[in-house]
Amino acid sequence: MNQSDLDRFADLAIAFGANVQPGQIVAIGSEPGKEDLTRALAASAYRHGAKFVDVSYFDLHIKRARLREADPDTLDFVPSWYGQRVLALGEQRCARIGLSGPAFPGLLDDVDPERAGRDLLPAVKEGVTVVNAQTTNWTAIPCPTRNWAQLVHPDLDPDDAYDRLCADVLHICRLDEDDPVAAWTQRVAVLKHAAAALNEHRFDALRFRSEGTDLKVGLLPTSTFMAATMQTVDGVTHMANLPSEEVFTAPDPLRTEGVVRSTKPLVVGGSIIRGLEVEFRAGRAVRIDADENAEVLRGYIERDEGAARLGEVALVDAGGRIGPLETVFYDTLLDENAASHVALGVAYEITAGEQDRDRINHSQIHVDFMIGSPEQEVDGLTADGGAVPLLRRGQWQV
Amino acid sequence: MNQSDLDRFADLAIAFGANVQPGQIVAIGSEPGKEDLTRALAASAYRHGAKFVDVSYFDLHIKRARLREADPDTLDFVPSWYGQRVLALGEQRCARIGLSGPAFPGLLDDVDPERAGRDLLPAVKEGVTVVNAQTTNWTAIPCPTRNWAQLVHPDLDPDDAYDRLCADVLHICRLDEDDPVAAWTQRVAVLKHAAAALNEHRFDALRFRSEGTDLKVGLLPTSTFMAATMQTVDGVTHMANLPSEEVFTAPDPLRTEGVVRSTKPLVVGGSIIRGLEVEFRAGRAVRIDADENAEVLRGYIERDEGAARLGEVALVDAGGRIGPLETVFYDTLLDENAASHVALGVAYEITAGEQDRDRINHSQIHVDFMIGSPEQEVDGLTADGGAVPLLRRGQWQV
Repeated sequence: MNQSDLDRFADLAIAFGANVQPGQIVAIGSEPGKEDLTRALAASAYRHGAKFVDVSYFDLHIKRARLREADPDTLDFVPSWYGQRVLALGEQRCARIGLSGPAFPGLLDDVDPERAGRDLLPAVKEGVTVVNAQTTNWTAIPCPTRNWAQLVHPDLDPDDAYDRLCADVLHICRLDEDDPVAAWTQRVAVLKHAAAALNEHRFDALRFRSEGTDLKVGLLPTSTFMAATMQTVDGVTHMANLPSEEVFTAPDPLRTEGVVRSTKPLVVGGSIIRGLEVEFRAGRAVRIDADENAEVLRGYIERDEGAARLGEVALVDAGGRIGPLETVFYDTLLDENAASHVALGVAYEITAGEQDRDRINHSQIHVDFMIGSPEQEVDGLTADGGAVPLLRRGQWQV
Repeated sequence: MNQSDLDRFADLAIAFGANVQPGQIVAIGSEPGKEDLTRALAASAYRHGAKFVDVSYFDLHIKRARLREADPDTLDFVPSWYGQRVLALGEQRCARIGLSGPAFPGLLDDVDPERAGRDLLPAVKEGVTVVNAQTTNWTAIPCPTRNWAQLVHPDLDPDDAYDRLCADVLHICRLDEDDPVAAWTQRVAVLKHAAAALNEHRFDALRFRSEGTDLKVGLLPTSTFMAATMQTVDGVTHMANLPSEEVFTAPDPLRTEGVVRSTKPLVVGGSIIRGLEVEFRAGRAVRIDADENAEVLRGYIERDEGAARLGEVALVDAGGRIGPLETVFYDTLLDENAASHVALGVAYEITAGEQDRDRINHSQIHVDFMIGSPEQEVDGLTADGGAVPLLRRGQWQV
């Protein structure tokens, strides 16, 4: 990515995505290999009046050393100051930026998956607290790296693969438009319209049907579909994911039934899980199979009671920019916005009403996996047993 | 550096330098470009029973963005969690490792030196508190990088320069010995013998005379010369610098008089200060001149009252491994161990007795600069005006 692209991308993430306000501290979660975009973000943040930019480079190689060498009894230990920092970011009304994209694909392949599943870093449980408190304006953006590019485009030579991934990301983030903010504003309006229509119906459940999948996901009385933008408690509007093509809500954690097959690989803690199939009974994942690395996810869902239940269900239509690329990015931020998905673990509190806050799912984890495809039929089920088509061939029916 | 050298270096730093104990959290302060040694250190720490390794990569490019773009009124702001983390490292009796060596030489050359002098990061004032509390076992080691190598060996091609710097560092750290710990143990004994001899004399002052330098540094009644190893409050012996070739103490901050010319360039906050000359009156630096970047140091000494006074005076004989290389490393850890030096700013509390703890220098800064040379004559001055030769042609006279 040339400096001009880096600067435009950084400005979009800072001024539109996180919507950094003058005087804010800006925390950036990055990784080795993502220095160029990280530095462009910092410069943009300071140009937009940031008081301080606090960059944290999380090095998966250090995690690998831990997973291979450390006493197994210590693998879920997290130093006290990790969580305290995240809570302080909320208390001090900071902005947060995360850079997604696997920096070191396959690095944990030779690590015992049971051990790998016990270390959730760089995620800390206080991250969920701060998201739910809506005290930080934040965004997550994809950061192309050469390592990631070779995973996504293995048939290209390294330079071409990197250029291609950069072009993909610029296209997906609407940075190939003269006015990316205008393009996003238009798309956000479509997604918000769909969310509003779904909310009017007050469905009792959603049903997903496609090859290998027949899944019913129960909703709560106040499950609220959201899209694209959020507001902090101080009224700062931000776009938490760039890109965002989804309409999502919190399901009833006790009422998911059936079998679901993931339609894209997912990366969990550095491991790639392919061919995932999960069976739910009374809301609980009772069987997890996969062609590779099922053990990693099995480790994750033993973390706590809520880790085996759904905290998010999201519908993605074919009108976004990721699905049409027909590319597996091995990055949840991109892949989840190509296809409808569900997430094991914690729910976003804002996706349910006050009276259901105790009923939504709680957990230390949040793992999205993609279940949608153009062929998938998604229906909304009403309390009296009726079915309303929601997605057919990727098109909204509401 | 090949993997075998990295692993041997890491083991020396972990098991001998910081002397990491089983169950300890190990904090590593590193920079982008130093990943290989950082990862080797983490692996070694875990092999030696560390509970957790907390790596912090400080990116000077982010600091540069701040110094160029941020509101000048914010330049001395430090987020609350930076200091809290360092205090927690002490409270929780952690180990600390720092990797020296300029990762991005010259990166701040185009930054206004007055602005640069206001941002002391990655140093935080709580670092001094924790060192003085002796609650952490710690070490600083040099980490060769390609950028640094080209600064040190500009006449060599990049690969050769890097290989040469690696060889320099391995030699300096006694890693070219079959048993580096035995070699260090022998050298430590020499330094401790010199320190003990100086302490017996209870000098009133030290006098340094060489070309451009005629400096008298007053000592306190309980100024105590130390060398090489320290102990934590829990009795963990560690070698705070690897290498360490110095014998050092806390001077009387009110009684330095004369003019001193630095004999090597020093790097302060990423800027290289060459040809430094400082004049002291009644302990205070009243004039700072330099061929380059004097303004950076002038900014530093305005930080607080103690920043313009001496907190350390150190004697270095010619028996170490750095001086004979006749190489300027542009890294205080190496250059200060090649030559006698003084430091502006905070004193180490352990280098004075209890009754003089209020009289030693206090400051948020600690900036060493090298004043020694083989030609320099160093004398100890007694209270009655007598002079005892301490160093002649780099040889101890005591």
